[in-house]
Amino acid sequence: MADCKLQINGQRIARRIEELASCSEPSKGVTRLSFTKEFQSGQKLVEKWMIDAGMTVRIDNLNNIIGRYEGSKPDAPVILIGSHLDTVINGGKFDGMLGVISGIEIVNVLFENDTRLENPIEIIGFCDEEGVRFHSTFLGSKAIAGTFSEETLAVKDEQGVSLAGALQQLGLAPHNYQSAALDPKNVLGYLELHIEQGPVLEAEGLPCGIVSGIAGASRYSFKITGFAGHAGTVPVTLRKDALAGTAEWIIEIERLAKENVPIVATVGKLQVVPGASNVIPGEVNGTLDIRDTDVQRKNEVIKSIFRAAEEICEKRKLTFHVEKMMETAPTLCNNGITAAIESAILANGIKPIFLVSGAGHDAMAMAALTKIGMIFVRCKEGISHNPEEFASVKDMEIGAKVLLDTVIQLIVKDKNILKERVI
Amino acid sequence: MADCKLQINGQRIARRIEELASCSEPSKGVTRLSFTKEFQSGQKLVEKWMIDAGMTVRIDNLNNIIGRYEGSKPDAPVILIGSHLDTVINGGKFDGMLGVISGIEIVNVLFENDTRLENPIEIIGFCDEEGVRFHSTFLGSKAIAGTFSEETLAVKDEQGVSLAGALQQLGLAPHNYQSAALDPKNVLGYLELHIEQGPVLEAEGLPCGIVSGIAGASRYSFKITGFAGHAGTVPVTLRKDALAGTAEWIIEIERLAKENVPIVATVGKLQVVPGASNVIPGEVNGTLDIRDTDVQRKNEVIKSIFRAAEEICEKRKLTFHVEKMMETAPTLCNNGITAAIESAILANGIKPIFLVSGAGHDAMAMAALTKIGMIFVRCKEGISHNPEEFASVKDMEIGAKVLLDTVIQLIVKDKNILKERVI
Repeated sequence: MADCKLQINGQRIARRIEELASCSEPSKGVTRLSFTKEFQSGQKLVEKWMIDAGMTVRIDNLNNIIGRYEGSKPDAPVILIGSHLDTVINGGKFDGMLGVISGIEIVNVLFENDTRLENPIEIIGFCDEEGVRFHSTFLGSKAIAGTFSEETLAVKDEQGVSLAGALQQLGLAPHNYQSAALDPKNVLGYLELHIEQGPVLEAEGLPCGIVSGIAGASRYSFKITGFAGHAGTVPVTLRKDALAGTAEWIIEIERLAKENVPIVATVGKLQVVPGASNVIPGEVNGTLDIRDTDVQRKNEVIKSIFRAAEEICEKRKLTFHVEKMMETAPTLCNNGITAAIESAILANGIKPIFLVSGAGHDAMAMAALTKIGMIFVRCKEGISHNPEEFASVKDMEIGAKVLLDTVIQLIVKDKNILKERVI
Repeated sequence: MADCKLQINGQRIARRIEELASCSEPSKGVTRLSFTKEFQSGQKLVEKWMIDAGMTVRIDNLNNIIGRYEGSKPDAPVILIGSHLDTVINGGKFDGMLGVISGIEIVNVLFENDTRLENPIEIIGFCDEEGVRFHSTFLGSKAIAGTFSEETLAVKDEQGVSLAGALQQLGLAPHNYQSAALDPKNVLGYLELHIEQGPVLEAEGLPCGIVSGIAGASRYSFKITGFAGHAGTVPVTLRKDALAGTAEWIIEIERLAKENVPIVATVGKLQVVPGASNVIPGEVNGTLDIRDTDVQRKNEVIKSIFRAAEEICEKRKLTFHVEKMMETAPTLCNNGITAAIESAILANGIKPIFLVSGAGHDAMAMAALTKIGMIFVRCKEGISHNPEEFASVKDMEIGAKVLLDTVIQLIVKDKNILKERVI
């Protein structure tokens, strides 16, 4: 069922991954922060590849690069394919870049085969998804989705340079950010291919999978208070050991999360007070991060987790205090696009698997503009934001083929899929 | 059975506790460090009380103060009663001082009643049990026990002043430290009354108790290594969460300790790496402190604890690494003295209870010289090394009465008790 004429060139993808990776500060792994000369030279490479693939290229006022491959029907809405071109400090070669290079690859294949679909395709290389410099993520995708807010331009980096200033230094007119926004009427949907950044595909032995949604996150800080005492003089039975109570709770959090897969819950930060080898812990401060695409399930599990804390603390004569630090809503992928990806995966002889993304992606911002869908590609051991980040040539080739077949499914084979289905 | 003629004056003890507490740096609680003018004025007070109680006073070259109350039989071996006169920074009024003041009190009562026992009694106010300035504890009691080592005199404080220098500034001749050592042949035994510094007596509703021994401690540092990962992208079932594994182990340590009371085990220090709210803990470093008077039981429990760590880590695909930081041997109290204390407690109509001391005391050092015994007095909530440290007048009075009756038991009523029994 896969379109066999149109052959993805996995070696070209791999070569371009390496070429783009060379646009980096001298560092372990790739360090290509937005608004730097390294970023600009990476963008230049992408521009060349876009032109070679038959696209016309524009750069908007937020420094997003967009390559357009016209469709055969001039007024047809555009299908957007994108990801980001910036990295974290000492990041990997695949996070973000693979989505842009795969998008260029599928247009390249269409162009090489003199194939033009009804709808135009735009490949976007977003600026600043990671938010390393201004601590404000999805700058580029928010501008295109029309949700970028004026005051973000005033946000300053550690040297006191504003975002507006950084963009102006690149010759852009950031205060015209509204010109970057697309009109939803002219957009068919948004697709993003990304490495999984998790270990599920590897564990399942699959090259790629379908993202069902991007989890919403709730983050809390907690304090469990007991009574500090001498490690030698207070019998175990008379202790109010804040760490022992926290330990019992952590095990309960883990149990509740395992009972409610795919929810994830993490105690990532823990500080023991006073923290001396001969003193019974009197206080523990920590954080709890819980993510799920299903808000109701997440709220129920959170309730159970806090009830467990109360019970454990009552039993142990400890006190429990918790405060919400952050809450983000989940983003669901569009059913129609998801079904198209599933068809494409089946057509390539792969078992379809649905994954929840626990990390944020430009697709989250793009969901404000249009229907979204995401394809995850297997990466080694789930490692990301790390020089060790790795995806195989074969998996990248399969991922790009699935992306191409998804586009064909949406535009050619099942034109009505986006009309019939609702989220 | 208690000697009813000899009445302890609880109010006098309480008054002296307050007077001695006033010899302190201006601070929250009591700060009377060895080798300071506050210590010297405290020692002056003690000297006066000793003289008032009919004692002759000497100060040895390590700055211990010793009051001697002669016995009726000049060559009889001396019974020693002591504790320390120094405090920690922001310490309490009772730790150490109560033992010295109680010793003076019982001699005072004997003196007031024109009573002289066969054996002489020496009351010792030790210098520097806490070791705040030179980080070397039991300086005074080691000198008297004859285990003080020459090189300790060269140990320097943070300002570069040596212990020898500090003692010389007080007009002492520290290099003659050997003159402070007592000859074991001339010593009958050593008694120390001390606040419990733990919550057992309070929990049992008892004013005082018998110390069976001072626990030996084993201290370890451990590292549990897993695999750090994104808190959103790694499913709970695929995690190698070093903190979740540590939590399971902490609960197991607590269970094993509870099964082997009076052993105590404490994880007091814990560092989670990398320690970010959105990262699964990849590594946990911590300390484990285990104390017991029974070395064999302690070693067996330690073995079980480490076996549990290995099993938990194998199950969770974590690695476990442990290193010994410290090991101290336990000190057992002498059976004969312990029996005399038990008789004295029963004679005062109190239920005898045997306690393990988890903290160190001068008695540990004195065990190298002679047979030792200890009486613990109830303190509020087990709090010590803290301005909140508290013992009631009634409890101090009962404690001193038990100390007096113990001395009478050893010297008068059951002279042979120390000959018949062995440790």
